[in-house]
Amino acid sequence: MKHLFRQVAIVGLGLIGGSLGMALRRGRLAGKVIGFTRREATLRKARARGAVDDGCTEFCPDWLGASDLVVIATPPLSVVPVARRIGRMTRHSFILTDVASTKGRIVRQMERMLPDRIRFVGSHPMAGSERSGVEAANPKLFERAACLLTPTPRTSREALAKVSSLWRAVGGRVLLLRPARHDALVAQISHMPHLAAAALALSAEGRALPLAAGGFADTTRLALSDPSLWSEICLTNRREILAALSRFDRQMSGLRRLLLRGAGADLSRRLRAAQRKRRQVKR
Amino acid sequence: MKHLFRQVAIVGLGLIGGSLGMALRRGRLAGKVIGFTRREATLRKARARGAVDDGCTEFCPDWLGASDLVVIATPPLSVVPVARRIGRMTRHSFILTDVASTKGRIVRQMERMLPDRIRFVGSHPMAGSERSGVEAANPKLFERAACLLTPTPRTSREALAKVSSLWRAVGGRVLLLRPARHDALVAQISHMPHLAAAALALSAEGRALPLAAGGFADTTRLALSDPSLWSEICLTNRREILAALSRFDRQMSGLRRLLLRGAGADLSRRLRAAQRKRRQVKR
Repeated sequence: MKHLFRQVAIVGLGLIGGSLGMALRRGRLAGKVIGFTRREATLRKARARGAVDDGCTEFCPDWLGASDLVVIATPPLSVVPVARRIGRMTRHSFILTDVASTKGRIVRQMERMLPDRIRFVGSHPMAGSERSGVEAANPKLFERAACLLTPTPRTSREALAKVSSLWRAVGGRVLLLRPARHDALVAQISHMPHLAAAALALSAEGRALPLAAGGFADTTRLALSDPSLWSEICLTNRREILAALSRFDRQMSGLRRLLLRGAGADLSRRLRAAQRKRRQVKR
Repeated sequence: MKHLFRQVAIVGLGLIGGSLGMALRRGRLAGKVIGFTRREATLRKARARGAVDDGCTEFCPDWLGASDLVVIATPPLSVVPVARRIGRMTRHSFILTDVASTKGRIVRQMERMLPDRIRFVGSHPMAGSERSGVEAANPKLFERAACLLTPTPRTSREALAKVSSLWRAVGGRVLLLRPARHDALVAQISHMPHLAAAALALSAEGRALPLAAGGFADTTRLALSDPSLWSEICLTNRREILAALSRFDRQMSGLRRLLLRGAGADLSRRLRAAQRKRRQVKR
C-alpha cells in the first residue's frame, strides 16, 4: 500500500500534534512518524501512546531531510521561529503546515520568509479539548472536525491538495478560507467564546458554584483550557477578537434592554432567533 | 413498604414534572402519582412514558383531595395562579411545592395567599436539558442535581423535612437558601448564562457556524432551551439578572483591557483564575 506521505515530522507533541501522530500511525497514512519536542518526558509519553515511531528533543537534520511533510504543532507564537530554524537546517523540498488557530500573521510571515522549496499551507483543525498535552491525545480527535486551510495565490496547488488529503484522511471536513477571513470567523466561533466562558466563570460568586447544573458546566467548559496557550492565541488575533467582542456586546445590550423594559414577547423572539442559529451547529 | 407519600399530584407534565413522576414511580416513592396537564396529547405521552399512574386535563377535586403532596411544575408565572385555584378547590391539609427557578416573588405571594392547611415549601431542582416536554423526561434527571429549597421563618419544619426527603429520594443534593439569596445566585449560575449563550449564538455570523467545534457547541448549548419558558424565567428575576450581567460585564471589560494592552502575562493569569474557578464545578 502506498502511504500518503513517506515520512511526517511533527514538531510539538501536545494535544494536537500527539493526536495527529496517533491518527497517522493508526491509519497507516505515513511510512514513518517522527516527533520533535523539547522535553524528554513528553517524548517518552508520545512513544508510549503510539503517537510517533521515533523522535528527538533536538531538531535532527537527517530526520527532517527524510520528511516530505513537516507539521508545526507548537503554540502560535513559536510557529514562525520554528519554521525559520527548520528552513535553515534543511536543503530539500517538502510540504510544511501548522495547526495554529490564528492564521493571518503566520501565513504572511511564512510567505515572506520561506524559500520556494518549502511549500507552506496554513492549517487549523477546529478540534480540541479542555484537556491538553499528549496524555489527552486521541486519534479520533479530528473526526468530523472542520479543518480550515488558508491558501493564498502563492500557495502550491499540489501542496494544498496533499494537505487537504491529510486532514480528510484523519476524518476532518476540509474548508478553504482566506487567512484574514479565517481569523475573523474563528474569533467569533472560538476565541471570543473562550473569553466569554472565562468571564462567566469569574463572575459567579464562589457560593454559587455548588449550585451549578450541566448548563453552567457546559457554558464555562472552555474556561478549563490551558491558560497560557489561550492567552497566546488571543494576543495573536487581538483585532478580530475585539471586533467579535463588539458584536457580542451589541447582542448582550439588546437582551439587557428587553429585560429592563420587561418586553417578554420580544425577549422570547430574540431567544428563538438564538435557538435557530444554534441549531445550525451540528454537534 | 411504606411510601414517602400516599399520593402525589403533579401539575404540569413538562420535562421537570414528567421526570419527577417517572422517578417517583420507578422508586415506588408514592402510592400513586396523578398528573394534571391542559393537553390531552401530553397526558397520553405522560401515561405512555410511565410518568403518571393516572391524570386529567382538568383539576379534579377528588384526586387533589386524596393527595398529601402537590407539586406545581408549570412555568414560573403560572405557579401562583395555579396554587390559588388548587387552594380554592380543596379543603384538606397537604404539602405544596413548586419547581420554578425564581423563588422570591413566588414564596412571598404563596405565604400571603395560602391558608395554613396548605404547607408550602419552595423548591428548585437545578436540573434541566436543552430539550423540553415530557418526551425528554428522564427519571435520572435529578441524580446528583442541586435541589434548592427556600424555607422562610413561616415554613413548616415538617413540610420542609418531607420535601427534602422527596428530592433526596430522587437522587438530588438538597441545599437550603433564603429566597432572595437563591434568586441572586441562580441569576449568576443559570439565568444570566442563558442570556450569554444566546448572545454568543446570535453574534456569530452565519458563515462561522459550519466551523464550530465542540467548544462553541458547549458554550452555546443553553441557547437551545425553550425560548418562551426562558423569557418568562428571565422576566421573573430581572433585578438579579441585571446585577449578574453587571458582574459579567466587569469581567469581560477586564479581559478586553488586557487584550487591548497586549498584556499576555496578565491575561494568562486571569484565564488561570477562571480555570481554578471552573474546576470547582463538579460536572
